[in-house]
Amino acid sequence: MTPEEQRLYQDFERAGLVPLWTVREGLMPATPTPRAVPHLWHWARLHPLAARAGGLVPVGRGGERRAIALANPGLAGQPFATPTLWAAIQYLGPREVAPPHRHSQSAFRFVLEGEGVWTVVDGDPVAMRRGDLLLTPGMCFHAHHNPRSTPMTWLDGLDIPFVHHVDAGFFEYGPDGLDDRSTPERSRAERLWAHPGLRPLGVPEPAHSPLIAYRWEHTDAALTAQLDLAAGVEPGHAAVRFTNPATGGDALATIRLEAHRFAAGARGAPTREAGSSVWQVFAGSGTLTLDGRRHPVERGDLVAVPSWTELAIEAFDSREPGEAGAGLDLFRFSDAPVLERLGLARAAPPSPHPGARR
Amino acid sequence: MTPEEQRLYQDFERAGLVPLWTVREGLMPATPTPRAVPHLWHWARLHPLAARAGGLVPVGRGGERRAIALANPGLAGQPFATPTLWAAIQYLGPREVAPPHRHSQSAFRFVLEGEGVWTVVDGDPVAMRRGDLLLTPGMCFHAHHNPRSTPMTWLDGLDIPFVHHVDAGFFEYGPDGLDDRSTPERSRAERLWAHPGLRPLGVPEPAHSPLIAYRWEHTDAALTAQLDLAAGVEPGHAAVRFTNPATGGDALATIRLEAHRFAAGARGAPTREAGSSVWQVFAGSGTLTLDGRRHPVERGDLVAVPSWTELAIEAFDSREPGEAGAGLDLFRFSDAPVLERLGLARAAPPSPHPGARR
Amino acid sequence: MTPEEQRLYQDFERAGLVPLWTVREGLMPATPTPRAVPHLWHWARLHPLAARAGGLVPVGRGGERRAIALANPGLAGQPFATPTLWAAIQYLGPREVAPPHRHSQSAFRFVLEGEGVWTVVDGDPVAMRRGDLLLTPGMCFHAHHNPRSTPMTWLDGLDIPFVHHVDAGFFEYGPDGLDDRSTPERSRAERLWAHPGLRPLGVPEPAHSPLIAYRWEHTDAALTAQLDLAAGVEPGHAAVRFTNPATGGDALATIRLEAHRFAAGARGAPTREAGSSVWQVFAGSGTLTLDGRRHPVERGDLVAVPSWTELAIEAFDSREPGEAGAGLDLFRFSDAPVLERLGLARAAPPSPHPGARR
Amino acid sequence: MTPEEQRLYQDFERAGLVPLWTVREGLMPATPTPRAVPHLWHWARLHPLAARAGGLVPVGRGGERRAIALANPGLAGQPFATPTLWAAIQYLGPREVAPPHRHSQSAFRFVLEGEGVWTVVDGDPVAMRRGDLLLTPGMCFHAHHNPRSTPMTWLDGLDIPFVHHVDAGFFEYGPDGLDDRSTPERSRAERLWAHPGLRPLGVPEPAHSPLIAYRWEHTDAALTAQLDLAAGVEPGHAAVRFTNPATGGDALATIRLEAHRFAAGARGAPTREAGSSVWQVFAGSGTLTLDGRRHPVERGDLVAVPSWTELAIEAFDSREPGEAGAGLDLFRFSDAPVLERLGLARAAPPSPHPGARR
Repeated sequence: MTPEEQRLYQDFERAGLVPLWTVREGLMPATPTPRAVPHLWHWARLHPLAARAGGLVPVGRGGERRAIALANPGLAGQPFATPTLWAAIQYLGPREVAPPHRHSQSAFRFVLEGEGVWTVVDGDPVAMRRGDLLLTPGMCFHAHHNPRSTPMTWLDGLDIPFVHHVDAGFFEYGPDGLDDRSTPERSRAERLWAHPGLRPLGVPEPAHSPLIAYRWEHTDAALTAQLDLAAGVEPGHAAVRFTNPATGGDALATIRLEAHRFAAGARGAPTREAGSSVWQVFAGSGTLTLDGRRHPVERGDLVAVPSWTELAIEAFDSREPGEAGAGLDLFRFSDAPVLERLGLARAAPPSPHPGARR
Repeated sequence: MTPEEQRLYQDFERAGLVPLWTVREGLMPATPTPRAVPHLWHWARLHPLAARAGGLVPVGRGGERRAIALANPGLAGQPFATPTLWAAIQYLGPREVAPPHRHSQSAFRFVLEGEGVWTVVDGDPVAMRRGDLLLTPGMCFHAHHNPRSTPMTWLDGLDIPFVHHVDAGFFEYGPDGLDDRSTPERSRAERLWAHPGLRPLGVPEPAHSPLIAYRWEHTDAALTAQLDLAAGVEPGHAAVRFTNPATGGDALATIRLEAHRFAAGARGAPTREAGSSVWQVFAGSGTLTLDGRRHPVERGDLVAVPSWTELAIEAFDSREPGEAGAGLDLFRFSDAPVLERLGLARAAPPSPHPGARR
Repeated sequence: MTPEEQRLYQDFERAGLVPLWTVREGLMPATPTPRAVPHLWHWARLHPLAARAGGLVPVGRGGERRAIALANPGLAGQPFATPTLWAAIQYLGPREVAPPHRHSQSAFRFVLEGEGVWTVVDGDPVAMRRGDLLLTPGMCFHAHHNPRSTPMTWLDGLDIPFVHHVDAGFFEYGPDGLDDRSTPERSRAERLWAHPGLRPLGVPEPAHSPLIAYRWEHTDAALTAQLDLAAGVEPGHAAVRFTNPATGGDALATIRLEAHRFAAGARGAPTREAGSSVWQVFAGSGTLTLDGRRHPVERGDLVAVPSWTELAIEAFDSREPGEAGAGLDLFRFSDAPVLERLGLARAAPPSPHPGARR
Repeated sequence: MTPEEQRLYQDFERAGLVPLWTVREGLMPATPTPRAVPHLWHWARLHPLAARAGGLVPVGRGGERRAIALANPGLAGQPFATPTLWAAIQYLGPREVAPPHRHSQSAFRFVLEGEGVWTVVDGDPVAMRRGDLLLTPGMCFHAHHNPRSTPMTWLDGLDIPFVHHVDAGFFEYGPDGLDDRSTPERSRAERLWAHPGLRPLGVPEPAHSPLIAYRWEHTDAALTAQLDLAAGVEPGHAAVRFTNPATGGDALATIRLEAHRFAAGARGAPTREAGSSVWQVFAGSGTLTLDGRRHPVERGDLVAVPSWTELAIEAFDSREPGEAGAGLDLFRFSDAPVLERLGLARAAPPSPHPGARR
């Protein structure tokens, strides 16, 4: 570099400038080169830590929730599973209440196990049970209360990293206490909206999905029917998306929510798409192979899949001869709505990985 | 009129011309002045006629269906309930088959009573039972077959008059016979799509509502919940719209479909809207008051409501003291999607009718 | 027919019923069988009649406009060019005013020749000149005034027949006089909206196309560029659609508006579509062949094209050797938005017409 | 902290976990707390640096463009004007060519001064002149060539930071050379699409805005008309959005583009919105006050406005008495489409800043 060039680059720096030609390849690669890495968190390790926190850390105003976030090792200590998605384990002890608040971030709860907590969304108490998906769309007040003598744990998913990056977060405390601690079997949201294809005419046009709870019995029935009818995504692989019944679109504006079932012994074709996702094993066991590296997974395990990472899923077949088997059930959430609505979605046919151990 | 004017009007006529100023008031009235009139058809009179036709008229290729259409007295003998809507009673005897065909007209079936017929929609047999709504969207092949020893009757609704007026009708025969006479309890459409808020990912993007059947158990539950939660259209009045779960919009492109329930003794506020509709009483009894004229109605009765006609509905209260009562359940279909999609929808607050006998 | 059958049919009639099987083939034909017929009105005959009316019939409140409608011979004397479209010649004499009114029907004006009238749309005076298209969307007040000493004639197009059929017409008189008789060169609408791709931010979201005038200079330039760039619909055939710049969709909710240019000597491929249209020759001469019957046309001539009629267009080549020639310019309006928005649009590849004289 | 708590937090860290309660306030603030800071770059300083780079750094394959990015001081050396937006000065010397490439990032060029370069977008050469806005939507091949003997400089804007964050970037080189170096006055895109409200029918449905160039003459005329008609955003303040004429929506999927004019002496009301933007002064002078801090600006100056920063704009009045004056013209780009399409947009009425020096 000539002295004249050196002076130029120094002057760039002083003026708050960076030349494109020194950063172009890093910033504009041929295909995505995410900092986030494929990563697996074992439920067997996470759950005891959440339980220990339950004994040591109070839940209440300020911290707001006893939630422990998955931090992707590629993201430098930030509590983000991927650059756009937050995933955390939340633990609520007997008789505890997580106080009401609301925020522009969209959130959901997915229940791996247990029951007995009610999430109150804009005044509507919603029971939580194994396999259920609950929404708390942006700017809905929400709280959790546990009227029972047993603790409960679940998965929290949010768009915190995305909203943080675009600086669009607004947060507001609700009242300190929770007046209504009723524990109905079915929420008002479900009673009005959980009828297939039926729209109530006496309620205002909803700004977000009015169906706050998606029950496991429906998800299970839908997946079962697809496999029975050979109407899945591919042989041995069924999948549903959780949608806003008022529009047919994604249930949350920024997060896609799906349930997948692989029949015992089924292997899905590898996929690769722009945008990131997080998977949680709901039942069964199998493997997730990420860019050629195979990860055995079992109930509760969580896997972060960065953008453009090749993913192949296989369900173990542990049935005895003649036994009907469950295969592998997975819950998935992703930032697909962000990319789709902005014209950035892209998927690719899989490429061979010489080193893949299959 | 001067001789010169007379010559001018004669010359208009010879040239195939009509001056606006002679027809403007009739063609462009201040508010709609429909030729169709409010009209009530009593089920008690219709049903025996359909049964007599069952004994005398065969069903088969050419005539296609043993359907008998309601002809609005204002529409000069045309078999149209309103200028846009077709309503007919269809009767299918024991062991009969109505052969497969398809057409650009959209159709539905609503079952007032009975069961035992399967409508086969694009190869998918769909059971018909009291209270169910079935769709046969435009250009889907469909047939009906009755494997039982009892006849069945139902309401057919279509957009025949509208499609006829805009000359957009296409019709095609299917194969003469019906190979698959299976009688499953649940259709493939329901098994894949009748899960609240869940969208199967392994099926192609549907061009029309993929949910072919809307079962009474769901409709009834939705209406019950609205009344229980005081979340209806107005006090004592619950209503649902049948929608396409893939879009949240109307289940058929040209026809709006709704179910309404008035609690025993409830009176709805009068309404008036541009566009026409047909109502059928599903259960209970009450009155429909049309432009101030009161019509007592009971199970099965059908009422045509022309555009801009004021309609007020009241449910009788025939309960014994202390008894829980059903009130009045109604099914409604209308051309609202046509008007809405073309910017022509309009509703008005009710005006007083001095002569109304209430 | 047996006596029993006779009694049945009599009872149908008494009960206000019509059996489908007696009318099915007429109502649900294999392809559209419109009552409207292909028809040509010669401008050379229409214009003198309009001028004679100008001398004999006043314009004013009640009749509202000195407009003379084209009545399709197939439509039994109704003043409708097709079942959905109204086309009329309007004539406004020197110093005359057609008073303000508004209606739910959508309207446009297309100027074949002359200039000097201003159409005032919701208080905005819009100059009319040869080749211009002006909109008066539904429920906009509008009037016409002619400040000059020469009369002016133009084509009015509306959706009167469609709105009449669905009983959705509302009409309202404006003030009797016209206070503002200013005659600006450019309307306020154009000054705010006629900038390609630019949307003003200081005006409310428009409920209809805010661009009230589409000037011939733009239409001509667009058609010229397409032919120069070989970017037309087919070789020698350029076409533009008039759109709402706030949405990119049709300029009117119920009427599609287009301009077409065929280069001298060009022949378009035959087309056939569901829905009806009206064409007016703006410049040049050629032929329109409708279901195999050839109609020579020249400036001002109007042609009604019913649904599913095959149409082929050819431009005469009357140029002297070496001369640049204009070919054939046509204005077209159709009910395509109605059919498209309701899922009823369909087009077909042309079929051979043995009797076509080509 | 007890030893038990210490062990828990250590175990969180080892397991790749971060507790929400330690980061919640930072991650989920009451209102956005952007790391990016309000910042002003003076054109008088930037332009000479770009010219110096022109003499020292070649343009060509690899670095691709001689573009120098504005690096927001709050963003730790990253070459990003805001978390979502890239802004750079590009310089192309006499006879130079910036080679063809394409990428999923959306880009535009805005020309502060000069002319003589053609940007070739998917094979269509587009002239660049003062005040023009040019688009290179995602995945369109584009190159720049300067056939003249004078250099040219302009502003490049892209969504690089956003696409980088969501890992959705794809990049592809085009051919090394540029075959077609023609220099037409008007691009093919403009000849087909730059006619107000007219849509060509012979071109395929565009996946992005087909109008690649928005010329200053139109922008200027639109702003002038708004001020003349008192139809601006507020008194003395006119504004237009650059839109996709095929949809009426934003011209680019991820970037909003606008031009603003403040009449001489006009003061805009303070505004505050979620999401970030960059402004460039196109003509005139005035002040931008950011969260109460006043920045005098003149031609070419660039200002980054982070999310939820209050912005107030004032145009100087440097006219002599009786002279007509230009006021302040600004070009603005922002990430508003990202926030709007994802339900995150929010604006607030201004709050008083006690320390504001006005």
